[in-house]
Parts: sequence; C-alpha cells; structure tokens
Amino acid sequence: MEKTEDKNQQQEEEQVVNPWEVSAKDGGKIDYDKLIDKFGCQRLDQSFVDRVQRLTSRPPHVFLRRGVFFAHRDFNDILDAYERGDKFYLYTGRGPSSEALHLGHLIPFMFTKYLQDAFKVPLVIQLTDDEKCMWKNLSVEESQRLARENAKDIIACGFDISKTFIFSDFDYVGGAFYKNMVKVAKCVTYNKVVGIFGFTGEDHIGKVSFPPVQAVPSFPSSFPHLFSGKDDLRCLIPCAIDQDPYFRMTRDVAPRIGYHKPALIESLFFPALQGENGKMSASDPNSAIYVTDSAKDIKYKVNKHAFTGGQDSIEKHRQYGANLEVDIPIKYLNFFLEDDAELEHIKKEYGAGRMLTGEVKKRLAEVLTELVERHRRARAAVTEEMVDAFMAVRPLPNMFD
Amino acid sequence: MEKTEDKNQQQEEEQVVNPWEVSAKDGGKIDYDKLIDKFGCQRLDQSFVDRVQRLTSRPPHVFLRRGVFFAHRDFNDILDAYERGDKFYLYTGRGPSSEALHLGHLIPFMFTKYLQDAFKVPLVIQLTDDEKCMWKNLSVEESQRLARENAKDIIACGFDISKTFIFSDFDYVGGAFYKNMVKVAKCVTYNKVVGIFGFTGEDHIGKVSFPPVQAVPSFPSSFPHLFSGKDDLRCLIPCAIDQDPYFRMTRDVAPRIGYHKPALIESLFFPALQGENGKMSASDPNSAIYVTDSAKDIKYKVNKHAFTGGQDSIEKHRQYGANLEVDIPIKYLNFFLEDDAELEHIKKEYGAGRMLTGEVKKRLAEVLTELVERHRRARAAVTEEMVDAFMAVRPLPNMFD
Repeated sequence: MEKTEDKNQQQEEEQVVNPWEVSAKDGGKIDYDKLIDKFGCQRLDQSFVDRVQRLTSRPPHVFLRRGVFFAHRDFNDILDAYERGDKFYLYTGRGPSSEALHLGHLIPFMFTKYLQDAFKVPLVIQLTDDEKCMWKNLSVEESQRLARENAKDIIACGFDISKTFIFSDFDYVGGAFYKNMVKVAKCVTYNKVVGIFGFTGEDHIGKVSFPPVQAVPSFPSSFPHLFSGKDDLRCLIPCAIDQDPYFRMTRDVAPRIGYHKPALIESLFFPALQGENGKMSASDPNSAIYVTDSAKDIKYKVNKHAFTGGQDSIEKHRQYGANLEVDIPIKYLNFFLEDDAELEHIKKEYGAGRMLTGEVKKRLAEVLTELVERHRRARAAVTEEMVDAFMAVRPLPNMFD
Repeated sequence: MEKTEDKNQQQEEEQVVNPWEVSAKDGGKIDYDKLIDKFGCQRLDQSFVDRVQRLTSRPPHVFLRRGVFFAHRDFNDILDAYERGDKFYLYTGRGPSSEALHLGHLIPFMFTKYLQDAFKVPLVIQLTDDEKCMWKNLSVEESQRLARENAKDIIACGFDISKTFIFSDFDYVGGAFYKNMVKVAKCVTYNKVVGIFGFTGEDHIGKVSFPPVQAVPSFPSSFPHLFSGKDDLRCLIPCAIDQDPYFRMTRDVAPRIGYHKPALIESLFFPALQGENGKMSASDPNSAIYVTDSAKDIKYKVNKHAFTGGQDSIEKHRQYGANLEVDIPIKYLNFFLEDDAELEHIKKEYGAGRMLTGEVKKRLAEVLTELVERHRRARAAVTEEMVDAFMAVRPLPNMFD
C-alpha cells in the first residue's frame, strides 16, 4: 500500500516520457526544456534551420522553422558530413497498433518525406508489428494486417519508391538484422533496460528482448541489400522525443560494436483537441482528428471539442483577446497552416480580440479537411502492388541520386 | 559479503543443474533421483524399453537398455500416438562453443540417430550459435564457423539427409520461427526466467531473450518448409537433462499458444575421466576424450587419468575386487561397449578381482579408439557440399518413409 502511494506521488511530481507513456506533471503541460536536460539531447536552434536551408537550397519545412522538431543529437555531425559530400540515410518507424492514423502519427512521416526530398537520401521505415503484438496483445496476424494497412498511409505521404524500403519486423527480422540484434543485446544489461524503460519483473521477456529490434535499423549493416560495403554510412532518425530512450541505448552501444552513433532530430508531441494537458486516446475518437474523418467529422470535432483560449463572451473577447498559449486551434494551425503570413495575421487578430474563436475554428477545419482529403485521395491510390513494391527486399541503385 | 556467503553455502548444500552449470552437492555425485523430483519429470522404466522394442521391431539402443536415457516427459504420449499410426518429429541441438567435440557431446546425436532410424521420423537439429556468441563472448563470425564445423561432426553420426534439417540460429531465425519466438516471449515473465535460469540484473538482455529461441523448434509451425499444414505433429526432444529447464518453460507455454507440449527423453551426464565428481572441462584436455584424439592420446588419457575402483596393489585387488560404482573405465564401457555379454563378463571378473584395472583400461582404450576412428573416417568424408545440403531450407518429401 505504501509503495503504491509512493509511486503515485512520484507520478504527480514528475513528468513521465517513455515510448509507452507521456504524462505531464500535475496534469499540466510537458516541460520540454526539462526533457532536454533529463534526456541529455540538444535544442535545435535557429542556426540549424538556417544551415539546412543553405545546404538544401530550399525553404526549411514548416515543422523545422516553427520548432515542431525542436531537439537533436549530433544533427551537426550529419550536416558536417553532408557538407563534405558524404551522404547519410534516414530511419523512422511506426508501431502499428490501430487501423486509422491520426494527425499526430503523420508528423514524423511528413517531415521525413521533406528530409528525403531535400537531402536526396535513402530511407528505411520500420513497422514494429512484433512490438505491438507484445504490448497490445494483438495476434501475430492482426499485427501484420495493421502493419500493412499503416504502410498504405505511410506510402500516401509521398515517399520516393526508388529511395525507400518499408519493412515489418515479423517479415524482416533475421540474417544480418538478427546478428546485429544479438550484438546489441550482449552490450545491455537487464538493470540498464530497467533504468531506461522502467520494466518490472512481472513484464514479459518479449518486452526486455525488444529494444535491440528498434536499435539495429540505426546500423547500415542491418540492411545488406541496401548498404552492403557502406558500413560507415551515418544514420539520421526523425522521431517524436518519446522514442529517445531507445536511441540513447543505441548510441551507448554503437561504438562498442564498431558502428557510428545514430543522429536524431526529435519532435514535440502533437496535442489532443482537449488541450495540451489532455491526451490523444485511441479509446476516445473525439480526442484526435483521424485521417479517415470526413469534412463533417472534422468540423464537428473542431467546433465541439477543440479547447480554445477565446473568452466566454464576445464582449470580453473583443476586450481581452484570446489566450494563444493554450489555444488548440492556433496550435494546430501552427503545425499545418503553411502560409507564415496568414498564420501571423490570424494570431495577431485573434490575440487582439478582433477575430473570433468561431472564425479561427472555421479556418482550422478548412486546413485540416484539405490535409485529410489530400491524404485520403493519395491513400486510395495506393495499391497492394505498391505496398509489395515498397516492402520488397531489394537493392535501391538510385537511392543517392 | 553476507550475501556471497549465503550463496556459497547454498551451493555447497544443493546440487546445481542448469544449461550452464552442472555441479553436485559437496563435490559428490549428481543425485539423479533428486533431479527427477525437483524437475518434475518421470523415470524411464523397463516398460518403456520393452515397448520401444516392440513398436520398432528392433533391439533397443544400448543407451536405452542401460539407462543412459533415464528420464522423460510424456514419452508415453509419443508412443501412444505412434502406435495409433501418428508420426512425430525429433528435435535436438548443440551450442557450438568449441571446435572439437568430446564423447559426451556425441551421446545425444548417437541416440537421436537410433531414434530416427527406428521410428523413421524427421529430425531438426538446432545449432545455437547465437547463444554461444552471447555466453562465450565469441564474435558472430567465429560462432558461425564453429557451428559449421560442429555440423560436420553431427553429420558424421550418420543422419539421413532425406529426413534431417540442420540449422544455425544466425541463419534461420526469422519469419515463422521469429513469430513463434514472440508468441513464447509474451507468455514468460522476467521473474519466471529468473526462477528457471537464475539470471541476475547484471546479466545482459541477450540471455533473457534467448530461451524462446531454444523453445520454438518444439513447434512444427517454426518450420513451414517441413511441416506446413502439420501443426498437430508432436515433437520428441532427446537431450541431456541439463536442458530440461528450457523445455519446462516451453511446455508451460505451449498450450497457451495453441501447440502441443513437446515430449522429452533425457540422459545422464557423461562423466569426466577423473570421476563422476570431476567435470569435463574445455580448459583441461585430459578430462575428456575428444573425437580428434589419436589412438596414442586415448591410451595415454585412459591409463593416466581414468579414475578407477581397482585396489592399490594386485594382492588387495585379487582379494577385494574393484569398486565398480566409482570406476570410470566400467562407466565408459557401459556407454560404449555394445556387447552386453562381454560387459557383464568384465564387470563380474573385475568386480571379483580376477581381472586387473590394466586389462579393463586396455579394453576401454580399444573400444574408444574404434569409436573415435570410425567417427574420424566418417567426418573426413563430410564435404562442404554435404553441410550445405543438410542446412538448406528445403522440403523433405520423404521424411516419413
């Protein structure tokens, strides 16, 4: 009994961020500065944004220039190497636990597509169907079905098939990949994974065995059909910051087994409609916008559920203006309204009370509907043959062109 | 300090038998009756030997009729099914940690070959190169090289290539095999493997991850190229009893994931030359006879190092006879001298003091030399192409003929 109380107390006092739980202190907002300190990564400042723009000769992605991707590890090494003419590869992934993705799920893929286009580099995408089978207690078959469905959404983000390899762990684990899993596992004690991931003795050994599976796509030798003879190729991982524990572990092990540490570029969490202290929940469809939502669904969810910083009455709103710090429509527009001038205009007018909450929500619903409908059209065009083609174990001869 | 003492005290008080440690209480002999009680397996009594003889219409193997294979789990179910006309498959294996095998290593393979011939059933042989890479800190490449060298010794035991699939974990883990690993891992908590295998928090997670790898060859669905559509096929595992912990775990999990429990038939340990309280040690070549030993080596080792129950002087020997209970030449002859009548004769004469230790040792050296030279000739005939053929992932259309 005392132990339980201690644990609850600790949870109230500290924010918890790991691959399976994201919860702020006292139900407040995630403190990203504290997270950077605790994890030991670096803030991605304006100099990186400018440097990326210079090196790629194209405007930086909205997620980069607005600080959605806000932290990194060794991104400077990747850019140094790139500037010298050395290429790298991208690695990202998804745990396929649900049929329909929400907007938060799209963020790493939208950003990764930009990185692939801007740097002209190959990309591996891991679908951790084994992880979801173990954590969500799905059957092997259901996990694999979801992986394939999710692959369609990922392909719909527009990745270049000549530079992209998508794989499911259940399909691909084995051979060089498994050898690297064993090499990693040898270097990590049980106490270490308990420290990083918080496993207990009652957790099954599948959980304890999994971290090497997510670690080894960081090493080019795990993909001999792509990177044979390129053991020195560096890896850049775009992901949400809750995945950092896996890659702290990976970076710790890498030099001990003769590999480069992977570099990371890490994003904020995408907030729930109910506000930044709310949590998007698979069991509450009103907490998120899904890529399967209709225009009507979106309009309803935004109008009915989006937490706003607008005032209670029009009179007060005109007088005091909206509190943009807590306003979800503004936060969502910050992610998805690409026009900087329009966003600035909305923030100024809304913050000053000249624009009403209903107007901002209307614009947000338009922006999201356009995004979702574009995604839906793209996904509808993804055939089973295309999925097979992206997931085929094959060389990519033009991956650096 | 206190904890260490406790542990030492416990080790002195109890025998320890697990896949990595076999040590008797107080340096005495392994108490196999206690082991059967502790593990919860059954003694293999004479009725089984008779039944096997009847079902296979051939004399039972010397290891069976002399109690070398002395314990089992559900072997009766295998025989019941066989009597009804249902077939089964055999599964055994080896951890390739050394180049040269000693006689103890050959025992499960000699017996498995007999079972394959007698019951006319398919066989899978697992080479756990991943395990040895992790436990012995060998490189991946060295573990795989040893696996292939050991495969040659295994093939030299005479297995039928039309019924036998040999695989290395580094080569074969993946696909259906990996899916079964995940299914098993989901059902076993960390506390459970600590209870079974005695891992500590300072052990690396490769060790914690390994038990499912040794578990899943017990399930026919791990070999779709062999047993597709035969999910109901039962599995019989011949092994030394130190491997029982893996299969206790496997049998616990099997019904929860919809599979038959594998049956086991388990052997005694092969004693060291120095006696049953000694231990065969890779670092002491004089503790064992290796398949690479010459006739001269064998003669020297038997004469110089075999612990005997003979008396100190010829006079006392003639008077009291040899103590057969502790006599290593007699124990070795019990394993390898196939002629029951001759063995009985030697035991009677030696026990009565009419036969001298030197004479028994001479006969043992002859028997072992013949065995080792026969093995060496067979191994020399094993080509790289034969290894490739045994290890090819292929259907075995005539495996039940």
